[in-house]
Formats: sequence, C-alpha cells, structure tokens
Amino acid sequence: MKTYLDCIPCFMDQALRAGRIAGIDETGIKKLLDEVGAMIKDLPLESSPPATGDLIYGKIREITGVNDPYKIIKKETIGEAKKLYPELKKIIEESDNKLLTAVRIAIAGNVIDFGVGHEFNIAEDVRAILNQEFGILHFDEFTASLNKTESVLYLGDNSGESVFDKLLVEELGKPVTYVVRDVPVINDVTMQDAIDSGLDTVAELISSGSSAPAIIPDLCSREFLDLFETADMIISKGQGNYEGLSGIDRPIFFLLKAKCHVLAKDLGVEKGDIVLASSNRITMASD
Amino acid sequence: MKTYLDCIPCFMDQALRAGRIAGIDETGIKKLLDEVGAMIKDLPLESSPPATGDLIYGKIREITGVNDPYKIIKKETIGEAKKLYPELKKIIEESDNKLLTAVRIAIAGNVIDFGVGHEFNIAEDVRAILNQEFGILHFDEFTASLNKTESVLYLGDNSGESVFDKLLVEELGKPVTYVVRDVPVINDVTMQDAIDSGLDTVAELISSGSSAPAIIPDLCSREFLDLFETADMIISKGQGNYEGLSGIDRPIFFLLKAKCHVLAKDLGVEKGDIVLASSNRITMASD
Repeated sequence: MKTYLDCIPCFMDQALRAGRIAGIDETGIKKLLDEVGAMIKDLPLESSPPATGDLIYGKIREITGVNDPYKIIKKETIGEAKKLYPELKKIIEESDNKLLTAVRIAIAGNVIDFGVGHEFNIAEDVRAILNQEFGILHFDEFTASLNKTESVLYLGDNSGESVFDKLLVEELGKPVTYVVRDVPVINDVTMQDAIDSGLDTVAELISSGSSAPAIIPDLCSREFLDLFETADMIISKGQGNYEGLSGIDRPIFFLLKAKCHVLAKDLGVEKGDIVLASSNRITMASD
Repeated sequence: MKTYLDCIPCFMDQALRAGRIAGIDETGIKKLLDEVGAMIKDLPLESSPPATGDLIYGKIREITGVNDPYKIIKKETIGEAKKLYPELKKIIEESDNKLLTAVRIAIAGNVIDFGVGHEFNIAEDVRAILNQEFGILHFDEFTASLNKTESVLYLGDNSGESVFDKLLVEELGKPVTYVVRDVPVINDVTMQDAIDSGLDTVAELISSGSSAPAIIPDLCSREFLDLFETADMIISKGQGNYEGLSGIDRPIFFLLKAKCHVLAKDLGVEKGDIVLASSNRITMASD
C-alpha cells in the first residue's frame, strides 16, 4: 500500500506515543518530533507506511538508546492472552466450524496493537469479534488453498496476538513456518516473544531479517525471501504486513482488523471491520 | 496556553485538512506538509498553538494563492445558523433564565469549527448542548461582572457561531464591541462574516489587526489592544482565543466547547464539556 497523505500526521502521532512509551522527557520527544518532521520532505508517497515506520522507530532507538521500550508491555499482553487460551481453545473445539472460529480468534488478537492510538481490552474485544460480521471473507478460497498446500508460511504481527496465532496454527493441520521481526519494533512479535507465546511448540520460527514493523520484501533477508517466493500459501497478519505486501503477486491471505480509515478505504471496507482477504481476489477487484 | 507535544501531530492534521479545503492537488499538499514538518524544529513549546496556526495558514495562503478557502463554507454555515435564529430566539425568550440560555446557545455555536477535525450538525448539536451540564460554570461571576460593567468587549471565533453570538449580545443589555479576525483564516469570523451574520446591527465591529486564528495580544493592533487593556468585561469565544489568552491577567470569561483532550486537560474538564470560565477563578484554581 502506498503512503497516503493522511499517514503523515499519523507518523507524527506514532513518534509522539513511541517517545512517551520509551520514557524520554519532553525535550527528547520534541527533538524526536523535530527530526521526524524534517524527514517528511524525503518521504516518497510511493513507499509503504511501514517503510517510514522503520525510519521513525530507528530514529527513536537512536535518540533514546532504548532498544525495546515495549518489553514489559509485551510480556504483560502475552501473559494476558495466555490466560484466555484455554477458554478460546474450548470455543474453537465446540464450534460448528473450527477453522473459521480459529480464523476469527486470530483476527481478534490483532486488536493488541500499540502502533495505532486506540485503547483495547483483550478479553472484551475478542468476545465482540467472535460475533462480528466480516467486511471481507474469502473463506472458500482459504480452505481450498489450505487443502492443497503442503505447508503454510505465517507472517506474525504483534506480541500477544501471537498466542491467538498459536490457536489458528493448531487448526491448520499443516506444517507452519512462523515469521517474526528481526529486532524489537513497537510491540511486534520477535523470536523471544514467539517462544514466550508457545509458538515454538507448534511451528518452525524464522526471522524476517528486517527491523521494519511489517514484511517489506525489499528489506527482508534472502533466507526469508526464499520461503516467501516459493510458498504455496501465506497467511499475513495485521495492517502493517498488508501495507507492506498489498499488490505483490503471491498467494497471500490477509487476516486483520481495519484499525484506521486509510487502510479501510484501501481495502474497500469500513474502519473496524474484520477481514480475511485473498490477494488474488483483491487484485481482481481493483482491476 | 503553551503548545503541548500533542499539538504537533494536530498541526500536521490541520495543514492536511486545510490543504484539501483549499483545493490543492496531492503534490501541493505534500509540499505543504513538507514545509510544516520542517517548521516544527523552530516551534517553541512556549508559544501558543494558534501562533503556530498563524504560520501554518500563512504557508497555506502562500502555496495555494487562495486567500479565503472557506469562503463558500462560511456563507453556508452563516445561512444555516440564521435559519435557526428565530427558533433559538424563542427558546431564549421562553426560558427561566434568558441570559444563561443565551450563553448556552452562544457556546453551542462553537461547534461550527473547521479547525478541529470533527464532524458537526449545527441543529442537532445545538439542541444537545441546550440540555448539557457545564464542565465549568462561573455564572454568578459572569452576571456580577455584567451588572457592573459599562460595556462588553466580545471576542468572536467562527463564522456561523457569530449568528449565535448575536443572540447573546442581544441579551447582554450593554453596549458591545465585537472583535473579528483581520483576514480570512480557517472559518474564523471576519468583518464581512460578522456583517453577514447581522452583528453590525447590535454591536460595534472592530478587527483584531491580526491574521492569527485567535487573539494573541502580541500580534494584535494598537487599536484593539487599547480596548483590550482597558475593558471591564471581556467575553472570549472558543478554543483558539482561550489558547491565546489563558494566563493573561484581564477580566475574561471564556465561553467554549472543549473540542480536544489537550485543551480539556489544560482547563481541567473532559473533552466535549461546555465551559463558562472566569479568568480570575481559573488563575486561582491553578495557584
């Protein structure tokens, strides 16, 4: 997805929130905003929003010297999600369509996002999403693809959400490679966070090789790209990964909650909608 | 009021919306955002938000060559407000406390603001505010001051809101001087807008002498300051005027709806609250 003009004030807002989470003082945050403001003129609108995010969060690391400001928050949300795990597992097992319910729950986990400026309550939001209509639901394509494929490449998004991903991985019934961020960025899932979420017991874990808060192929490692370019089925979680991957000709299923109106418009849904979208079908729709 | 860090993303957002209203294309708006972004490093947090607004809207005028992008919108909102005038006049005349009801209606008019990014519906919002509790209500001080003063200096804010101001001016029962912006900025009330609102029939009209979207004494004309520095009672409408004037030792009554959480926090109220606050009492509260 290209960077829309609306993303630019949002970059400033993200820098402000991230600076506060990193615990820097007002003078430090002002310096951060000064630098992000000065970066705007060099941002091409053709690049994706998380490519800019990569620059911003790099700048935050540079100014604060704090490598993982969300470390404690990530531990807490993983813990909170793990407490919900048994109840959610039971909901899946008792449901008429276990796979679809697991998809819903994996999307519900996508509310755990500190990159957007919304409050969330994991337990309440999950329950609401279990009964929410989909804005886009390409479930037939999803099951057909899953039946055919030998394995699944699963692109993680946030920590905590990763516990919900485990529930979906367990329902896929195929070998899964789960992709994490190479370094801490916002509350995105890293190797350690994935292990803390128990994903190492159900999937092979690999790094994207990139510090960006999304899969942006140009920034990823050759090791990741070898998998990405040959996978028969890719599950991509969250907004950032969609922003980095939309328009790329790979067999991707985007699972996300549309958390801002810019992305919602790009996908043709309403803000707040939950989405299971096949990259094939999205491409066809925009032709 | 000082500029809070939260105001900085909001400046970018204002520039974006103003650029769109001015009808400039995506490239032009990007250029505007580039320039506003680059300005951030030179913004002292000690200056008030509308002082920055003055720079931003000046930049918009420079880039677009459009002097009054809100001209048509202002005509429409003044027309819409004038249609409500007879109904609101009747509500005031039939109420137990005409002055307080006129104050409420003048505050209700403050929803007509294109500087903040909220949708509004004049007729609906006015009816809601007629029944809303005040976040701050220094009405006893207001009536005491009004009884003592020989005249009132009334600082206007938005066009359309100006029609609601006329209803309050008519209830004050004292000679009123109504202050307008010197040049068009956002949808703020100018001399022509005040005349279109019928204010010339009930008040003397003067300009602040400044292009800022607020009364910022340092930027105003000597003619205005002579009145401001000697007035026994000043009514200040809206957020911008509060931001420019809070902390200044003059007998001011701030009438506004708190439309952003930064200003709400500065005043000690909730976002969305309506406020009639005496500058004396606010100063005492923060001592």
